[in-house]
Amino acid sequence: MTRPGAGMAADIDEQPAGYARLLSTDHAREIAHVAAVVAQRRPRHVVFTARGTSDHAALYGAYLTEIRLGLPAGLASPSVVTVYGARPDLSDALVVGVSQSGGSPDLAEVLRSARASGALTLAVTNAPDSPLADVAELSVDIAAGHERAVAATKTYTAELLALLMLVEGVRAGGDGTLPAEERAALAALPDLAARTLDDPTPTRLAPRYRFAAQLVTTGRGYAYPTAREAALKLMETSYLPALAFSGADLLHGPLAMTDPDVPVLAVVGSGPGGRSMGEVLPRLGERRADVVVVGSAEVGGATRMAVPEVDERYAPLLDILPLQRLALALALARGEDPDSPRGLKKVTATM
Amino acid sequence: MTRPGAGMAADIDEQPAGYARLLSTDHAREIAHVAAVVAQRRPRHVVFTARGTSDHAALYGAYLTEIRLGLPAGLASPSVVTVYGARPDLSDALVVGVSQSGGSPDLAEVLRSARASGALTLAVTNAPDSPLADVAELSVDIAAGHERAVAATKTYTAELLALLMLVEGVRAGGDGTLPAEERAALAALPDLAARTLDDPTPTRLAPRYRFAAQLVTTGRGYAYPTAREAALKLMETSYLPALAFSGADLLHGPLAMTDPDVPVLAVVGSGPGGRSMGEVLPRLGERRADVVVVGSAEVGGATRMAVPEVDERYAPLLDILPLQRLALALALARGEDPDSPRGLKKVTATM
Repeated sequence: MTRPGAGMAADIDEQPAGYARLLSTDHAREIAHVAAVVAQRRPRHVVFTARGTSDHAALYGAYLTEIRLGLPAGLASPSVVTVYGARPDLSDALVVGVSQSGGSPDLAEVLRSARASGALTLAVTNAPDSPLADVAELSVDIAAGHERAVAATKTYTAELLALLMLVEGVRAGGDGTLPAEERAALAALPDLAARTLDDPTPTRLAPRYRFAAQLVTTGRGYAYPTAREAALKLMETSYLPALAFSGADLLHGPLAMTDPDVPVLAVVGSGPGGRSMGEVLPRLGERRADVVVVGSAEVGGATRMAVPEVDERYAPLLDILPLQRLALALALARGEDPDSPRGLKKVTATM
Repeated sequence: MTRPGAGMAADIDEQPAGYARLLSTDHAREIAHVAAVVAQRRPRHVVFTARGTSDHAALYGAYLTEIRLGLPAGLASPSVVTVYGARPDLSDALVVGVSQSGGSPDLAEVLRSARASGALTLAVTNAPDSPLADVAELSVDIAAGHERAVAATKTYTAELLALLMLVEGVRAGGDGTLPAEERAALAALPDLAARTLDDPTPTRLAPRYRFAAQLVTTGRGYAYPTAREAALKLMETSYLPALAFSGADLLHGPLAMTDPDVPVLAVVGSGPGGRSMGEVLPRLGERRADVVVVGSAEVGGATRMAVPEVDERYAPLLDILPLQRLALALALARGEDPDSPRGLKKVTATM
């Protein structure tokens, strides 16, 4: 028997090396090649399909697609295809399935159906021999290696980086090689991730939430997928009901729920998404919520898990790291083993 | 001073009359006209934009669009446009803004930008003179009348019905007049809604949740927007953290969270979406969750809020009714006034 949480801790610690691996010549070339094919085929819009943690990576991919490529992007509900048997006309679309295992039959079915309707299909997965990669015309290996814990951490961030490299490759066009400036920014990520993981704050903060009955996470724009993934991680490992809201939606109703007993984790970068949280935080203050911030800069007097300053587009690759560590430390503080959460399997075969 | 919850109760009770009004000749003709224009312009895909409760109506619209029209549909994040200044190329798209007030500046901005990029734009709102209706090329008035409570109920279901009539009108083509069979099915809804509201079960069930610390709602396909909206309504009025999951996502992680202390509200129809919950309910049973079902048929031995049997496509217009009444009764049982929840405004002006 290993120590509880040892697997999740090892997975988390491997993320800087995972970034470096995916950025290495071979993997970067493979992604550039896929990006070049996508750029050449000129899809008119992009549809992502994913479940659980990978759904949050897909959401990041959708923001990138709209903001960096100017292409409409959305997330598809697999049930439309698998439960209702609908066959939406996707002939103008790039359909991207994101899944660490590549083993969910419903995602494979969505991609199979999309390909039959003339869509360009792409699998982003940690299992290049999986059914999902098999059924898709194009495939990207996120090369994260074996994940020990059931709760996904390093496969999530590898999905984020693969999607980022892919979108920037499509934007670059040609043979999908990234501009020198982009390559330099990406090359800094492994070290920045390692520095982020060195901060002891998340572990020190865990006792604060030992007896929390619930938790709210929030962020806007690029930070919203981080808020969603942090909430899921806390639920999976600590069985703590964690509600994620975009900063804007939080003001539309659920704000009523926040009070001094409700801890709020707010992801607040220094770019446009972070600045747009400027209207949310004072409202949380009025409600005397207990706010802890993830970000590169001080926000009021709030307790903060610090991350290095980067362009907001790269921030999701760093912001999630202290939140993963918080989830791990909190699970341990609550006497749970985050490596094998109750009632959870690694591959979930929904149809 | 009126009795707490009197406004919300009156809003809820008006829903059958709201359905009848929207189905009346004048409104039906107006919607058919808009549907005819959409059908003639042949958008290649549909993008919905909305916030809060209207986001759940938009999600229903997206399911309808994909299943009934075979057109890809997704929900847009307004922040892409309003925070990051992106201008996705929407020239092939129908962009639908759904908002009871029509007053959110961010949605108006999304529609303005979409229209400038060549999209066909449509506002679905309860305020035909609102900025949202003003900026859109087409507009549908959901005609729900003044809503007394801050928590939206009758405007939500009027949005659902307007979107249903619109999609079926587009499907019909021509002048957007619905086929006789569809008109007959819709004409039955006011009476079915009134019958649903007559059931005393939701009010009787409220004490069961008086001391609940959290709640999970779930449903698949057409029932998923209902699960989402029920969770929001419970949060807005009872400040109870309520987590909504599609049945499939629930198996992917959050299932770990459900135990005998976590009440689950499961929306289980008798069509394909409901049948696909067949794999979810036994798993909840294994975890000894406390399950209450909303549906037209018995499910195992679970306590049930009964709704009349209809095609699953119409079920969202009935299934939400007992859940709204449960939210109202629970708020009252917990000593809250659902007519004016703390920290909540009717029009939320996020940018």
